[in-house]
Amino acid sequence: MINPFTLPSAIKDDLEAVQHLIKQRSNSNLVARINDVLDHILSGGGKRIRPILTLSSARLLNYKGVQHLDLAAAVEFVHTATLVHDDVVDESQKRRGKLAANFLWDNKTAVLVGDYLFARSFQLMVASGSLRSLEVLSDASATIAEAEVLQLVKQNDPTMTEEDYFTIAKGKTAALFSASTSVGGIIADGTESQIQALFKFGEALGIGFQIMDDLLDYQGAPLTMGKNVGDDFREGKVTLPIIYALKLATDEERTFWLNAFQSKNVRDEDLTKGLDILEKRGVLKQVRQVAWSWADKAKDQLAIFPDNGIKQFLNELVDFSVNRSN
Amino acid sequence: MINPFTLPSAIKDDLEAVQHLIKQRSNSNLVARINDVLDHILSGGGKRIRPILTLSSARLLNYKGVQHLDLAAAVEFVHTATLVHDDVVDESQKRRGKLAANFLWDNKTAVLVGDYLFARSFQLMVASGSLRSLEVLSDASATIAEAEVLQLVKQNDPTMTEEDYFTIAKGKTAALFSASTSVGGIIADGTESQIQALFKFGEALGIGFQIMDDLLDYQGAPLTMGKNVGDDFREGKVTLPIIYALKLATDEERTFWLNAFQSKNVRDEDLTKGLDILEKRGVLKQVRQVAWSWADKAKDQLAIFPDNGIKQFLNELVDFSVNRSN
Repeated sequence: MINPFTLPSAIKDDLEAVQHLIKQRSNSNLVARINDVLDHILSGGGKRIRPILTLSSARLLNYKGVQHLDLAAAVEFVHTATLVHDDVVDESQKRRGKLAANFLWDNKTAVLVGDYLFARSFQLMVASGSLRSLEVLSDASATIAEAEVLQLVKQNDPTMTEEDYFTIAKGKTAALFSASTSVGGIIADGTESQIQALFKFGEALGIGFQIMDDLLDYQGAPLTMGKNVGDDFREGKVTLPIIYALKLATDEERTFWLNAFQSKNVRDEDLTKGLDILEKRGVLKQVRQVAWSWADKAKDQLAIFPDNGIKQFLNELVDFSVNRSN
Repeated sequence: MINPFTLPSAIKDDLEAVQHLIKQRSNSNLVARINDVLDHILSGGGKRIRPILTLSSARLLNYKGVQHLDLAAAVEFVHTATLVHDDVVDESQKRRGKLAANFLWDNKTAVLVGDYLFARSFQLMVASGSLRSLEVLSDASATIAEAEVLQLVKQNDPTMTEEDYFTIAKGKTAALFSASTSVGGIIADGTESQIQALFKFGEALGIGFQIMDDLLDYQGAPLTMGKNVGDDFREGKVTLPIIYALKLATDEERTFWLNAFQSKNVRDEDLTKGLDILEKRGVLKQVRQVAWSWADKAKDQLAIFPDNGIKQFLNELVDFSVNRSN
């Protein structure tokens, strides 16, 4: 696990308990292959941002119980299930620097293990005993799937609008971030306005995080990221950098982008040319500014909470999310 | 929808309300493709056995509320989600006599729409307000996925045992049948022994139903069934008829079966030969007897309930399940 930020000791202890719970509650007594796949996926060095958000949100409200652990493990399971299915959908060969499950085993196994994790996530939500958390997380799960289909429909469509982009980013990423923070508030018995602020905090952070993810696809460090620069470009996934580049494009550039995003076989020299244009038009800088503005919106939501050490950490987490290089 | 049995009027009214709920609660306001896929799948003429089991179990206990409708729609969503993912796993071209979603759209869409339905099923369980029903159904969902992976691991493995077969049948089919009946009992506030009897009723019925399904794959009517006789044979799926045939096989027959189930390309004449052997050895009759014995076990569990018209219907439903021709 890579945590490039310093966890408060309470969260560190919680997270260790969650790691244990993840291991314990994902285990299959019946089918060795499930455990093999899960060992491979769950040891894959995720940042565990979503469970950290649940734990921190509960601790921000001075929660003293243990049910936030169930919910934190549950959100990580939902996230992992969607990753495994995403890799099937994207035909990915890599995930977090390792071979993807669909590639190492097969699509069939990846589909079913994703389903298994999704079911296990709901078992953990039930274990928390919070029907309202179940509501928030089942709503988020439906929203994620909806947004993923929308993304699929819009693939290779360079007429995709900024509005479409934000609908997809909100759905596929921010919905689980905001669910992760709000269930922390719910389990800690927060007031409606606290839960609402946590929701909006998670949502803004999630949007900023996704924008940064899409930016890193055009300037990330391939070795640490575990996926290659230009993956979105090659897959014809239109993201914010491309939407901005199209707005600023000369006629010649426009033709280049339209061809690239409708082509089945993008060449390396197309990617090089694309990166040059993005640099020349200042698109990457502009996209970074937008990510930062969402980071500021996230931080604003924390204003209503007194600082008990966790608030400062959440501010740092926001900064990390929009300044990371992987 | 095909219902070859006569529904009691209370169940008929309930089922109409469930159909409405299924339509309403599966709708996506955001993505037209989701609704297109769902229209295609949900109009596919399923027998709706699982929701009928939930409705009947609640009504057997004289339940007067409406939350059984949410749960009945939820079990149908879980079932449909697993069908859609099964078709991806089996690379099916047909489902209920129509083109399968993975074939008509693509695997990616089918994976994501399955996820969407699964999430929607949990929203409906939350709407029922019954945390215990959520527990039963999330347990069943995990068991289904586990059994499906086990089935995948055992594919093309003619050394599969009768015990493996029953583990898979219990997991992939009976788990949702028993969950469907027990949540009906739970929502109707049944006693523990009533809920337990409903669970065992559903489980035995589910096992009998699955055995019958596997039998029909060797003697069904292709037009009404919507899949072809011999699909399991061609896919190398070892089921009870084959396990029994192997037990009774001469050396020459054993060689035939082992070759057929490890071959990538099964020819039509292999299927014809296989069907001949099954007939000659009396395997199909033997398998039918086993299905009937599970049907009897199911009916035994109904003994503790007074007959309010629903019990008689459930007995008929059992008879239909193990005597059907599609």
